[in-house]
Formats: sequence, C-alpha cells, structure tokens
Amino acid sequence: MQKPANAKGTRDFSPEVVKKRTYILSHIKSVFHKFGFEPIQTPALENLSTLMGKYGEEGDKLLFKVLNSGDISSSIRTSDVEEGNNSSLIASLSEKGLRYDLTVPFARYVVQHRNDINFPFRRYQIQEVWRADRPQKGRYREFTQCDADVIGSPSMINEADLILIYNEVFNLLKLPKAVLKINHRKLLEALVDELKLDFPVTVFTSTLDKLDKIGVDGVSKELQDKGVSVDKCEKLFSIIDKLKLDEPSLQGLLAAFNNNSFAQQAVADLQEIRSLIESHSVNISIELDLSLARGLDYYTGCIFEAMIPDSGIGSVSGGGRYDDLTGVFGLSDVSGVGISFGIDRLYDIMERLDLFDLEEDRKPNVLFLHFDEKGRNHSFSIVQQLRAHGIKCEAYPDIKKLKKQMEYANRTNRSHVVVIGDNEMENGIYGLKDMGTGNETKVDLNQMLELLR
Amino acid sequence: MQKPANAKGTRDFSPEVVKKRTYILSHIKSVFHKFGFEPIQTPALENLSTLMGKYGEEGDKLLFKVLNSGDISSSIRTSDVEEGNNSSLIASLSEKGLRYDLTVPFARYVVQHRNDINFPFRRYQIQEVWRADRPQKGRYREFTQCDADVIGSPSMINEADLILIYNEVFNLLKLPKAVLKINHRKLLEALVDELKLDFPVTVFTSTLDKLDKIGVDGVSKELQDKGVSVDKCEKLFSIIDKLKLDEPSLQGLLAAFNNNSFAQQAVADLQEIRSLIESHSVNISIELDLSLARGLDYYTGCIFEAMIPDSGIGSVSGGGRYDDLTGVFGLSDVSGVGISFGIDRLYDIMERLDLFDLEEDRKPNVLFLHFDEKGRNHSFSIVQQLRAHGIKCEAYPDIKKLKKQMEYANRTNRSHVVVIGDNEMENGIYGLKDMGTGNETKVDLNQMLELLR
Repeated sequence: MQKPANAKGTRDFSPEVVKKRTYILSHIKSVFHKFGFEPIQTPALENLSTLMGKYGEEGDKLLFKVLNSGDISSSIRTSDVEEGNNSSLIASLSEKGLRYDLTVPFARYVVQHRNDINFPFRRYQIQEVWRADRPQKGRYREFTQCDADVIGSPSMINEADLILIYNEVFNLLKLPKAVLKINHRKLLEALVDELKLDFPVTVFTSTLDKLDKIGVDGVSKELQDKGVSVDKCEKLFSIIDKLKLDEPSLQGLLAAFNNNSFAQQAVADLQEIRSLIESHSVNISIELDLSLARGLDYYTGCIFEAMIPDSGIGSVSGGGRYDDLTGVFGLSDVSGVGISFGIDRLYDIMERLDLFDLEEDRKPNVLFLHFDEKGRNHSFSIVQQLRAHGIKCEAYPDIKKLKKQMEYANRTNRSHVVVIGDNEMENGIYGLKDMGTGNETKVDLNQMLELLR
Repeated sequence: MQKPANAKGTRDFSPEVVKKRTYILSHIKSVFHKFGFEPIQTPALENLSTLMGKYGEEGDKLLFKVLNSGDISSSIRTSDVEEGNNSSLIASLSEKGLRYDLTVPFARYVVQHRNDINFPFRRYQIQEVWRADRPQKGRYREFTQCDADVIGSPSMINEADLILIYNEVFNLLKLPKAVLKINHRKLLEALVDELKLDFPVTVFTSTLDKLDKIGVDGVSKELQDKGVSVDKCEKLFSIIDKLKLDEPSLQGLLAAFNNNSFAQQAVADLQEIRSLIESHSVNISIELDLSLARGLDYYTGCIFEAMIPDSGIGSVSGGGRYDDLTGVFGLSDVSGVGISFGIDRLYDIMERLDLFDLEEDRKPNVLFLHFDEKGRNHSFSIVQQLRAHGIKCEAYPDIKKLKKQMEYANRTNRSHVVVIGDNEMENGIYGLKDMGTGNETKVDLNQMLELLR
C-alpha cells in the first residue's frame, strides 16, 4: 500500500484555505474590474520555445519541462548520455514546459492575438505558475500569481491608476500601514551618470538593491571594492536618503543631479504621477526609494514594490514599466506597465494578522438531525424548501445516534441545528437551535425561513 | 523572430470567453454551496506513484510526465535506450506528472488528510486536468473539470441531492430539456445473471454501452457474435426498453428479473431515491437507462449521465457511486458518490444556443474622452469619483484624436462615453452619451452618478 503524499513543494488547499484565498482574490478582482481590467487565461502548458531564454540561464533550469509522448528511446542519442550533454538531451526529450510566470505567456498572447486586441489593453490574469526551485518555508514549486498590466499606452495615467489600485486593494483587505516604494530606472541611470561609475547600471543596482539587507555601510563597502570612491559613496547616500513622492523631494533630486537629462525625464514622469493622484485620498504611504531596482533588466520606467512593514514578510507585490515586452515575439515598440500580487504572501500576512472576514461565516448553515429514516426523509424535504430560498443546509444523511450527529454539527461549524423527531413531524413546530448562543427557538417552517433569511 | 503559438491541444481564453466560463462556474458553485459542498484544491503536479496504474494502461500513456531536474544524463541507462525500454526510461527520467482527473487527487487528499476531515465530507473541486490525447475538435489536452462528491456516507439521500443539483444547475443555466440518465451497476449484474451470460459484466456492458451508436440490431449482432442466443437478446431488449424512474418501471424490472437478488438491491436503491425526490419540483427528465455503463470498473451503485438532447454534443456530466475510491491509498470501506460537469462542453452548448446572460453586460462601463492633457487629467479625476461608487470606468489614457478615442470606445463596447472639453471643465455639465441608444444627457457629476448607479 502506498503512503499518499504531495509532490515536493506543492500543497493541498483545504476548504478553509480555499475560502480565504478566494476572499483575497475576489477583492483584488473587484478592484481590477472597476479600473477596467479584463480577465484572460493562458494554458499551463507552453511550447518550450516560448519559455526558454526568457528568464535567464537560471530560469531555464528552473522551468518544469514535460516529457514528450510516444517512443522516447529513439529520440535519445547515446552520445549525449555518455557525454553528459543535458541540454541536448532535454531538447530531444521535451518540447513543452509549465508556465513560469504570467508575463511571458501574456506577451505571447498579445502578439498572437494582436488583431483582436484593442490597444490600450488592460488585462488581469490570476493563475498558477511552476518553478523547480528548492522548496523552503514560504517558497513553493506551484504558486499563484495575480497580474494586472496595461499594454499599448505610454501615459503616466496608467501608473497613477496602478497606484490607486494598490491603495484600494490594501484598504479593502484592511492591511495596515502598507508601503508602496517607487523608483524610476532613469534615476538609476542618472546616478551612474552623475557618479561617473565605470560599470553598467545593472552591476551598480545589484549592489544598491541590497541596502535593505546590508545597510549603508555594507553597500558602501561593496561599491568601494568595485573602485567607487568614498566621496562618491557619500554623495550617493546624500541623494537617495529619505525621499517622498512630493514636490520638494523631486526638486531636490533635480538639483542634486545638476539637471542631468536622465534625471529630468524621470522627475517629469514622477511629477505627472504625483499631480494625478494628489487630489485623491491615498492612505498607503508612498516612498521614493532610489535603491529599489527589482528586475532592472526588464523595467525601463517606473518601478514599484509594495510591502506590509512588520509583517516579517518581504514584498507582496512588484511591478513597473517595460518598453519591449513583446519584441521577442515580433511586435516592437509596445510600451506597457503592470503589477503582480503575491497571493501566498498576502495570505500568510492576513492569516497572521487575523484579517479574514468571510461573509460566508456570518450566513446560516443549517444541519437537520433525526432519529430514524422517517425523520431523515422529513429533514430532506424541509432542506429542499430552505434551499429554494437560497439557504445553505443539509440533512444528516445516515441513520446514526443523535450524539454522533450533534458532534458532526459541532465539528463542521453549523450555525444552526434542528432535531426532527415524531413531535416535530406531527406538529410542524421545530426547535431551531443557534449553535453560537445555544438558544433554541420554536418555529414553524415559515418562521424558520424568516429567521434564517 | 519566433512566431508565437499555443502548445498543441491548448487554448488561450480571451476576456469574453473567461467571463462566459466564469458565468457557468459561478452558477454551478452557488448550487454546490447551497447543498453544503466545500471547495478544495489540489496541486497540478502529483507524484507519478500517485497517478500511475489508476487509469488503466492507456491512461498511464496519456499522463503528462515531468522531466526530473538536474543531471538527467546520469540517470539514463544506455541499455534502456538501445533496447527501446521506454517504461524504464520514463521511470528514471520522471517522478512527477500532471493531474489527469480530479478523482485520484481527491482520493489521495482524503486519505492524507483523513484525521482533519469530518465524514461525511461534501467537497467540490474545479480545476484543470491534462491528458496527452490526440487533439481534435472539442477535445483538448488541457481542460477544466468540475466535480462534486460526498464521501463517507452510503445513504441514497446523497444520490437524491445530486439529482436535485443537476436539476438546479440546468435550470439556472437555462439549458433546455436536459435529460438525466440513471442506471445501477447491480441491474447490469442482474442482466448478466438473468441472461446467464458466460462472460463478465464488463464485457457485456462494453457492447451494451454502444446502444446509442449502433442501435438494437448492432448490439444484438455483437452479442450473438459472443454466443448470446437470439432469444436472450430479445429478452434483454424487452427488459431495458423505455424505462423511467417511476414505480411501474421499477416494479416491471423486479418482475422481469424474477426477483433476482441483484435486481432487488438496485430497485430498492432506486425506489428510495425516487421517493425522496418525488415531492420536489424536478423539471429535467429522468430516464432509467439500463444500457448506461460509463466507467463500470469503478462504479458500484447508481450511475449518472446528463445530456442536452439536440445539442449535437454528447454527455455534459457523468457520475455515480463507488465503494472503494480510497482503498488503493490505504483507507478501505469508504463509500462515496459524485458527479462531474464538463465545462468545455457546457460552454459550447450555451454558446451555440446563445444562453449567456452576463450581468456585467448590463452594468455601466464608461469611457471619458478628451482633447488635451488638461481634459485627460480632468477625466482621470472624475473617473476616481465614479469608481468610489463602484462604477467601472476609465479615462482614455493617451492624447489622441477624438475620432480614434471614439473608435476605441465602440470597439471595447462601452455603455457610455463622456467627452471632456473646455466647456465641460468650466461649467461642470457633462454630456453622458448612452452608446446603446445614441442619446446624450446633460448632467452634473451628481446626476451622472445617479444615472449610472
């Protein structure tokens, strides 16, 4: 007999967990919807030619690859086996893989369906992705991404809408003190320019990105190891210290950068965003964080990262503007901007902070108990009448001792129970017991309906 | 430049399709919920040890297997390659596979979490499954299953509830003239017994199951080829002709079967179901169809199949009672009964019959158009105020010719447009144009809100 187990790094979701995840997702969807985002879905299986080479060398390794069907022995070259040529073996054994994120499939979708899409196109997509990562606490091989992107519009109105989406989602979920960090790729370019660094911006930001972890001293040391002078490091930290998305901070940046043209472009974008959102009540805090550089290879304009401080969990969402998402599939010059929520992390935070407020928990969920087949069949009949009015209820299906049935009602968190005996069947008067208070109310069927509705 | 394409047998779902599929699923979910079924989710990736051997030899072939990570060359035996030993190669290259149905993962779930589950357990599960079938019209390699099962109760109340679920789902979806066919495995056993066939019931039913396709003559011929006499064939068809789930049909069966004990057990079950549902308004038609034998290896009691006649599409749902789903994972004697809806087929039928009635299509979806940046920013501001009241709306994000913006509004099916020019910004009086009627109403912001809510 085999002992059943989940595949490594994957999880089952019990009813309680599914309901809580649904709670998060339905709130986020309602916001996306109001902001004009439309749902799409792409398949879990993609051609490997679509996926490979899009996530870097490490990403290619972490892609789950699906074995071809049919006679695989004839497609294996024994020389590949003997020489340990894994990439050639993989190419001959597999032509499909599992979705690694929602961005590349979305880019494929946009190019493939470009003639049916009206640009600007606001889409959201909530689906599982798979990564052959080493499983560890809070990191799974199968997890859910929740993305919203606007593609085909360079306007900063889209960035402003995304910030308002963050605000509304965090408010709806009652997540306290959410922080949205914003940066702009061109500010990072301006830093490299102004500090006259003789290495590429991505090398610079791979160090700067560690500021949260290793602090000012750690970053300074790493930069000095790369040949950056102490003076320049001091200048860097004087520029990026304690900025907000407000006019003084933005003017300060322009001055500090001596009107560097990269900085001017970035500040113009940020000023436009600021002025768009200023008259709307935003109660999450927005920080301008010039050390933020997530996925810099990819983002070309604004960069976003959202977090719930003191939650013990890192970012819960990231995003930004990209200028050539679809180029690799043959459609150039389509600018887009998007954000992605990490549902597993939001779930963990909300669970810790006890923030779930499931409507269902406040609605009736009635179980009918009985002593014999006659009582059970009577229960079945009443149950259908309650259901006709939308009430969730069940007749205990089997003939068991009342104590057993009551234990089941307790363990399955029923809001009410009704015990059907001979008296109840004769008189049509039932004892509706509220499982929260323990109170029992004598009612006929109509009164029961009234009380439960 | 690579030309983007879906992996063979998979599909993208556009916003319109996602919304229609969501329409179907949310109606089905609402019924499941009312009947006390709870949602669970299991991972797409399962250990191959969980999946292999559960779907027959053909099923094992159709499982999508996932290539192990790391150095695969060292796990390939060249002797396997040379001898064409594919099953040994697969075993050394892959230890995970993709979910093939929802039943086996559910069985694993039940056994694995048995200490946390309160039996009887009513669960529903709506997730994708994958099969390496040859793709053809209406058959995909990735598709959605929608299952509801009660596990841990032998009571016919569960069968009765499932029939009422069929009734309510088909009514809610406005699917016309739905037919539910019911059979019972023990009636098939009784046929084999009564006709004194000298081959197993599964051989008999594999022929009988073709009645729909090859007719009485075809089935008779096949049975005669297997050595069944003409008399017996005639007796068979006199028994199974035109039965209903009513007392005369059931009594007729008992008589025809000379009170065969298998037949007595089956008729007792069916009588109980009939009497439970008789007082409830069921308006789908229920047929007793003794040729129905889907998945007989598996079902031990009632067997269900639902269809929409004249839709040109076969069954849209099947199900039945099974007595040892979880035995293979080490938990014996747990009886269950369940049904599974084919969402793709329901979608196809509803699309053909134009039965989708999306609430969203009747709700406002407003686009604000403008002439310049000032107008656009004013639009952005009004939009946030409407959204605060739950109204779906957007400001056209870019500065483009009004004609372009209007075309976009038309193509994206907005319910209303508002053009923001200098006059509108000065006076606060806007022209709210109903895109259905073409009528424009002059309103201030409050009036606009009133009209749209």
